[in-house]
Amino acid sequence: MLKVSEIRPIKISKGLKVSDLIHEYGKAGVFGAGRVSRAVEILSEMFSDDKATVYLGFSGALCAAGMRQIFAEMIKEGLLDVIVTTGANVTHDIIEALGGRHIRNIKYLDDEDLRRRQLNRIFDAFISDEAFITFEKKIQMILSDIEEKKRKNGIAPFELIWEIGYRINDPNSMVRQAALNNVPIFCPAIVDSILGLQIYLFSQENTIKIDPLKDLRKIIDITFESDRKGAIILGGGVPKNFIFQAALITGKGFDYAIQITMDRPEAGGLSGASIAEAISWGKVKSDAQWVDVIGDVTIIFPLILSAALDNMGKGKGSTR
Amino acid sequence: MLKVSEIRPIKISKGLKVSDLIHEYGKAGVFGAGRVSRAVEILSEMFSDDKATVYLGFSGALCAAGMRQIFAEMIKEGLLDVIVTTGANVTHDIIEALGGRHIRNIKYLDDEDLRRRQLNRIFDAFISDEAFITFEKKIQMILSDIEEKKRKNGIAPFELIWEIGYRINDPNSMVRQAALNNVPIFCPAIVDSILGLQIYLFSQENTIKIDPLKDLRKIIDITFESDRKGAIILGGGVPKNFIFQAALITGKGFDYAIQITMDRPEAGGLSGASIAEAISWGKVKSDAQWVDVIGDVTIIFPLILSAALDNMGKGKGSTR
Amino acid sequence: MLKVSEIRPIKISKGLKVSDLIHEYGKAGVFGAGRVSRAVEILSEMFSDDKATVYLGFSGALCAAGMRQIFAEMIKEGLLDVIVTTGANVTHDIIEALGGRHIRNIKYLDDEDLRRRQLNRIFDAFISDEAFITFEKKIQMILSDIEEKKRKNGIAPFELIWEIGYRINDPNSMVRQAALNNVPIFCPAIVDSILGLQIYLFSQENTIKIDPLKDLRKIIDITFESDRKGAIILGGGVPKNFIFQAALITGKGFDYAIQITMDRPEAGGLSGASIAEAISWGKVKSDAQWVDVIGDVTIIFPLILSAALDNMGKGKGSTR
Amino acid sequence: MLKVSEIRPIKISKGLKVSDLIHEYGKAGVFGAGRVSRAVEILSEMFSDDKATVYLGFSGALCAAGMRQIFAEMIKEGLLDVIVTTGANVTHDIIEALGGRHIRNIKYLDDEDLRRRQLNRIFDAFISDEAFITFEKKIQMILSDIEEKKRKNGIAPFELIWEIGYRINDPNSMVRQAALNNVPIFCPAIVDSILGLQIYLFSQENTIKIDPLKDLRKIIDITFESDRKGAIILGGGVPKNFIFQAALITGKGFDYAIQITMDRPEAGGLSGASIAEAISWGKVKSDAQWVDVIGDVTIIFPLILSAALDNMGKGKGSTR
Repeated sequence: MLKVSEIRPIKISKGLKVSDLIHEYGKAGVFGAGRVSRAVEILSEMFSDDKATVYLGFSGALCAAGMRQIFAEMIKEGLLDVIVTTGANVTHDIIEALGGRHIRNIKYLDDEDLRRRQLNRIFDAFISDEAFITFEKKIQMILSDIEEKKRKNGIAPFELIWEIGYRINDPNSMVRQAALNNVPIFCPAIVDSILGLQIYLFSQENTIKIDPLKDLRKIIDITFESDRKGAIILGGGVPKNFIFQAALITGKGFDYAIQITMDRPEAGGLSGASIAEAISWGKVKSDAQWVDVIGDVTIIFPLILSAALDNMGKGKGSTR
Repeated sequence: MLKVSEIRPIKISKGLKVSDLIHEYGKAGVFGAGRVSRAVEILSEMFSDDKATVYLGFSGALCAAGMRQIFAEMIKEGLLDVIVTTGANVTHDIIEALGGRHIRNIKYLDDEDLRRRQLNRIFDAFISDEAFITFEKKIQMILSDIEEKKRKNGIAPFELIWEIGYRINDPNSMVRQAALNNVPIFCPAIVDSILGLQIYLFSQENTIKIDPLKDLRKIIDITFESDRKGAIILGGGVPKNFIFQAALITGKGFDYAIQITMDRPEAGGLSGASIAEAISWGKVKSDAQWVDVIGDVTIIFPLILSAALDNMGKGKGSTR
Repeated sequence: MLKVSEIRPIKISKGLKVSDLIHEYGKAGVFGAGRVSRAVEILSEMFSDDKATVYLGFSGALCAAGMRQIFAEMIKEGLLDVIVTTGANVTHDIIEALGGRHIRNIKYLDDEDLRRRQLNRIFDAFISDEAFITFEKKIQMILSDIEEKKRKNGIAPFELIWEIGYRINDPNSMVRQAALNNVPIFCPAIVDSILGLQIYLFSQENTIKIDPLKDLRKIIDITFESDRKGAIILGGGVPKNFIFQAALITGKGFDYAIQITMDRPEAGGLSGASIAEAISWGKVKSDAQWVDVIGDVTIIFPLILSAALDNMGKGKGSTR
Repeated sequence: MLKVSEIRPIKISKGLKVSDLIHEYGKAGVFGAGRVSRAVEILSEMFSDDKATVYLGFSGALCAAGMRQIFAEMIKEGLLDVIVTTGANVTHDIIEALGGRHIRNIKYLDDEDLRRRQLNRIFDAFISDEAFITFEKKIQMILSDIEEKKRKNGIAPFELIWEIGYRINDPNSMVRQAALNNVPIFCPAIVDSILGLQIYLFSQENTIKIDPLKDLRKIIDITFESDRKGAIILGGGVPKNFIFQAALITGKGFDYAIQITMDRPEAGGLSGASIAEAISWGKVKSDAQWVDVIGDVTIIFPLILSAALDNMGKGKGSTR
């Protein structure tokens, strides 16, 4: 338990390392700074715990916003055992892997102007219709390259994502690295994405069935077999719930949990709910180490991750 | 287009009708009040447009929070043609239909205390483990009552929800009314919910396959066939995206759209994105009538709906 | 204390009165709807309690957004005893009283475009430079019309606002009604506003001193003499703190408090702090009736006020 | 102007310096990460511009949360020319300077429990009644030590704060460093704070007058005389407005502006307003460099400041 202590002043100087900055946050230990400092401690422990299976859930357009390689590297380094994300993030990772690009600093009059220029907006990121056309061509080829028996039988979203991963070459792709390293990317709502629309188009003239129960079965099995478990929740939505419900049904709550979100709890949705609420459900253990950080994931997660890596004495062993 | 005009003062007195209050909001016409007033106008037009197919997408724990009957009534009144929601909302609607209850005003020490008392928290709403046990028994019976051929073949989430709707008796149930009135409730992420977990348990000893591509095909077909379209988006997540992507793939943007959310746009996630952004994608037409209202759905939606009903001269014909 | 009870369904139909809608919110009793319902109960009790001095604190550009007449009417009806607000709200009320207008639905390219057109933006409300020029001329005349002895001696912001109120004719002006009804409008940061800038300009060639300690002394005196007290806090900032610190120094916490804000608590600022926090300071009594509503004041306050007026059996007597 | 470019991937590794992390943010350049990167660029330029007067405005309980020494150091380093803040921040800085401490990690049942234990809560920071009693004794002594002529005449808040600064010894105090370095801390709402309440108590038996017009005059004079100007806005409220209105009345808009806040714009209050809005008023120049960062100041400001210090080739000369 945290000890009662004084709030000590933060000092900022030239040349700080990220881990020094986090140390300063920890001296204050309150408000957002205190939470970031606590998140680094928890993430470091989660990564250093050889018995802990680490689950990453993320929603929001993170792969469009330049964050995909972080996840790819985390997989390569053996830091992640399970990923749950949206079809959109899988789509945007594949688009980049296939040579498409997300762009920025576009000047525009209004969204109608963008439509005329065939540019699709994701807040202040943009992607051209052309990138989607390239994606379409290549993904249709990849889908037809998957063994028909697998497609016919009902393919799990995580298996489909692996199949795609085997067939793309970009080492900076999260999807590629997940396939190479046998890390499942669960995507229970895969049909709810551009990738899903491509699967639909493919299914118009070819055989393919998506079996989301296989994703559910697989995550439950992993959860049953895990001694200890840590959750990294970036944003809310399906990824957050899918990770926590695996803990619910197995009766094995999480031992570690960090959540980074801008959503707020009062409106009652799961996305904004505090990790504390998950304790009432048994999704997180009463004596778990957990923290909610209120902030933009693209700022907070790289900051926390960088400091947690510094804190780790040595590499984490395989946990699967 | 809205005309340049003076901001006129809001007047509040005893005995106001909801539609009077909205009229006052409209006199000011700015900030949140202006947006609510605009939402009522758009919703009224959407409901009155006989050619418009009306899509409702909602996420967040609305069915746990007493909002399910509103949706049931809207279906009965012929106001809704398509619903997209989360598995959790379907679950909580069914729980109530089967006699389970959500409760409030529980005093508790912390979430650990709630766990000991077998109470699960949804912000300030609660549901007992017992309600889930009742749900389990009845839903397992319902699932085994569904024709095996349907289950084996791969059942669409919307069909499964209809099958359940046929087998429950509560006229205040959204799921029941959807089944009776042939309104599809799409739930592409159905496995991501307590209902999903029950399907998984059922699948351990019985045959059942979920085919989410059928949900996608059905919503695309409806969208192709619709002359005009209106979207009511309450919260974000999968429901918002699934509705808008049907417009994307069919090349037929929405004519009307209102969105109510507490999420903010700057973090880049779809849930907080303005409807304006959807114009750049062609999901909403450039000349559509649309508005974003920032607020708690449980406050704002009943307020807007009540006033929109007052505005409607006559009932809306069937649009399917 | 609130009793444990079921969450009952909200029903919405044509022709609802605002108080009917609030009754429906109360049946659910959770999330935002529950808080709005609770706020109406508390506001009704606060208004009906003949011994209660009612304090209104508001920040944000409410007078620019068409809300000033609500406050003017509340003063006339004897519902308010003390007001604390920003200099901006006093300024915008006076501007309207002097014939200036706030406008809306302006189309513009960007804020540079607005500057060229001499239009000042307040989110989606606008005011022309011309309105400020009119304000300048008239307010300088009013200031010079105030007895020099008063100005020389150090005038309290609340006295200065009364002096202005005596000299404007608009019955819909909050400032006018406050003067006529002897309700102080405290404005401890009056120099932080366009009105403050006008006082500064006046002071360049005339004698005027602002004595904010007189505002502080007056609110403390009123607080000492009040048997019971209710606070309506719309937004945060100086108005919220100035009301609560009067309770702190007199050792007499508030008996009723409602707060409506979009700010969130985690960042640690007073504006987003829950009313609960004020209990730790003794600013609000432990057994007080209080609620925080998360929402846009221009939507929530007229809604709550309208229903509270309906709930009141009879008029409230003078409380000062 | 920013050039259209690709969003490049962020890479995170062990041992990163804060400035490396910011460089990674800049490669993505969108969402929150892009804004933080831009804020560092602007802050670096602002600090490096010898002709620029730098204004810091901050609200929220930053001095209670361990941030005071950052401001003290910035003053010592010559990075700040003007400070505008709340009375609360001045109070909490002085409390620490006089030996009082803010504390954290207190376990408590509820806010009533805290009241019984005489602990005052500021979100997750706490301060005992005892610390305020110590503050009272010492501040009363300091006030009586100020020359009576000054007190009688009407003392500007900034002068009063200097007078206090001369009489406390803590080199880590923002108030102390401001006095030593001749940097005005404007506090137009000084009576709205515990320090203000102490001034009130002092005034019961002693002569003291607060003249906030002197704060206004001084900031206007500085603004008139400044060739170029930069604003650092942390949170909103009076500090933000007081800084920008000085630009308004002098007709000299800001050349640089960064704002860090969790408030949102849609509710119309100034605190949540984008810097863009200030361009319509002429408070910020059309061609200014500016950015809004959405986030918790205690996380974001140390991060940005640290990187900006790294970016500065050489020290900034005196700007006043």
